[in-house]
Amino acid sequence: MITPELRASRFMKAAYNEPTDTTPLWIMRQAGRYLPEYMEVRNKVTFIELCKTPELAAQVTLDAQRILGVDAAILFADLLPLLEPMGMDLEYQKGEGPVIHNPIQSASEVDRLKRLEDLSTLQFVFDTVKLVRRDLPADIPLLGFAGAPFTLASYAIEGGGSRNYLNTKRIMYNDPGAWHALMETLTSSLIGYLNAQIEAGVQAVQVFDSWAGCLSPSDYREFVLPHTRTVIDGVSGNAPVINFLTGNPALLPIMAEAGGQIVGLDWRVDMADARQILGPDRAVQGNMDPVSLLADLDTLKARAKAVLDAAGTTGHIFNLGHGVFPEVPPESAKALVEIVHELGAAQRA
Amino acid sequence: MITPELRASRFMKAAYNEPTDTTPLWIMRQAGRYLPEYMEVRNKVTFIELCKTPELAAQVTLDAQRILGVDAAILFADLLPLLEPMGMDLEYQKGEGPVIHNPIQSASEVDRLKRLEDLSTLQFVFDTVKLVRRDLPADIPLLGFAGAPFTLASYAIEGGGSRNYLNTKRIMYNDPGAWHALMETLTSSLIGYLNAQIEAGVQAVQVFDSWAGCLSPSDYREFVLPHTRTVIDGVSGNAPVINFLTGNPALLPIMAEAGGQIVGLDWRVDMADARQILGPDRAVQGNMDPVSLLADLDTLKARAKAVLDAAGTTGHIFNLGHGVFPEVPPESAKALVEIVHELGAAQRA
Repeated sequence: MITPELRASRFMKAAYNEPTDTTPLWIMRQAGRYLPEYMEVRNKVTFIELCKTPELAAQVTLDAQRILGVDAAILFADLLPLLEPMGMDLEYQKGEGPVIHNPIQSASEVDRLKRLEDLSTLQFVFDTVKLVRRDLPADIPLLGFAGAPFTLASYAIEGGGSRNYLNTKRIMYNDPGAWHALMETLTSSLIGYLNAQIEAGVQAVQVFDSWAGCLSPSDYREFVLPHTRTVIDGVSGNAPVINFLTGNPALLPIMAEAGGQIVGLDWRVDMADARQILGPDRAVQGNMDPVSLLADLDTLKARAKAVLDAAGTTGHIFNLGHGVFPEVPPESAKALVEIVHELGAAQRA
Repeated sequence: MITPELRASRFMKAAYNEPTDTTPLWIMRQAGRYLPEYMEVRNKVTFIELCKTPELAAQVTLDAQRILGVDAAILFADLLPLLEPMGMDLEYQKGEGPVIHNPIQSASEVDRLKRLEDLSTLQFVFDTVKLVRRDLPADIPLLGFAGAPFTLASYAIEGGGSRNYLNTKRIMYNDPGAWHALMETLTSSLIGYLNAQIEAGVQAVQVFDSWAGCLSPSDYREFVLPHTRTVIDGVSGNAPVINFLTGNPALLPIMAEAGGQIVGLDWRVDMADARQILGPDRAVQGNMDPVSLLADLDTLKARAKAVLDAAGTTGHIFNLGHGVFPEVPPESAKALVEIVHELGAAQRA
């Protein structure tokens, strides 16, 4: 639910292109391994136990927002547990990242991925949302999220991360019918999942297309755009959607057609060019190179200023172009929050 | 030397925007693991032994051109041996790819990379060129190549492949002076290396910026463009340069400023958009998604046709947007050559 207090937050005003006192920001993966407070919790449990224990997931979500002083909290969760009740045998291997032991290996197997029917299998996510919303400051929005259909499809097919997406594209190119069926299964599941997050208490959602940058513009248009659009169109009520894709600036004008109040940008595109492509009515999020947080403070400040100057003062939510790296000194992340708030206020003065 | 016969080849005419009877093509990594004839040679020696044995390197270069019937041969070699006489301790580990045991770990270490003075340390490359040129059909150009300064710098700093280029960007962002010094060392070395390839007998060279796609447009402009431009400007005589960068279409208008008769495109950008950005006087190379070679022949044909139609009939050298995968059936690669020649001729009829 978006209370009047939340609607008046910097994040929400920026999402709707309304004036704000300064530029709001949050940091992708802000509850992450660079934070000692996160590591303290994380060292007691496995990654997936942390995701599935609402008290702990809520704690790291709240810690990050409070420690950094960012303008939004983001649910601590992962893209892939959604695939478990859909039939995927998911395991997080120590040091290896996620592995799906029964990936979709050919077009004839796409019906092994089942539409998500029973949302209670993901109750731990919604319980985390409720716990966070209970303890988060009343003027700080909580963001939910999910993977975009392409990113989830490529995980289900490749069985994990992939360099070249050979199996994914092989199904896509050779059997468009099977591909679209797979994407529809994901799409309807995602709509249910995102709306249940909103029902539980998030104020906005980000849809992550982390891998779609491996596609050409025409392939994205044919094989991905209709499904991402369906997901975004299916998000209920008045929760803004952040439509985020990384890895290919040439997709920007097309992915923007999928919708989303806010378009999330990675650092590969120039912010001023992106604003020109997207037009003045679309809010944007991003897009500082995340490695900037390893630079000295003067350089960090100059790099943040370049993004702020290019974005202008309305409809911009500052963020990195990708998740924060474990190597980042927490002091630099905290400094970035101060820098953006200070420079954003100065820009408006 | 570019003989009249070579100057009249499809490749050279396309490089200079002159009419051809059909669209010329070659395939990046055409002498590669997908070819049984290559594997037969490769199984007898290590990868680096193959690179450093001119008779064998020449054989796989010639085999690939003859087997496929492509319009150019490309020197079988690797980007990294150039770094050995510059002071890098390079090893190709079985199954792991290249490793540099003494990477540049900070800005204070950049002078450990020494300017290449003695070209005879790379004599095996020039000997390979001579052997290939001796046996290659007189109307087929031989292409040489080298890594672009950024790609070589990131290898020297990261010590191998990298996901996020943290060390590279840390030096770049925190100590631009040290960064530019490192790039200048590479730049002058590369000019000598490329000109020695031309002297030995290649007709054109490709400069590979395989990793620069991790950069934002403003970082590319500041930290890379001047150096790549210096390399391309330094290539002697009338050998066309293919300026190839992969991973970020937003860099296209900027990297084109670095020069190169031909701009090499990966598949992430739409060919028609690229031609519009580059203008009618610039030849282009590319840009089919390399995974297309895993599709059935009808799909492969449709995908090749889409590239040809978007590129038009002059100033286009067909290629993949990246190297051919080991998983590709050799018959599909051979079929692609026929398809492109046939469709290219039909386009002109």
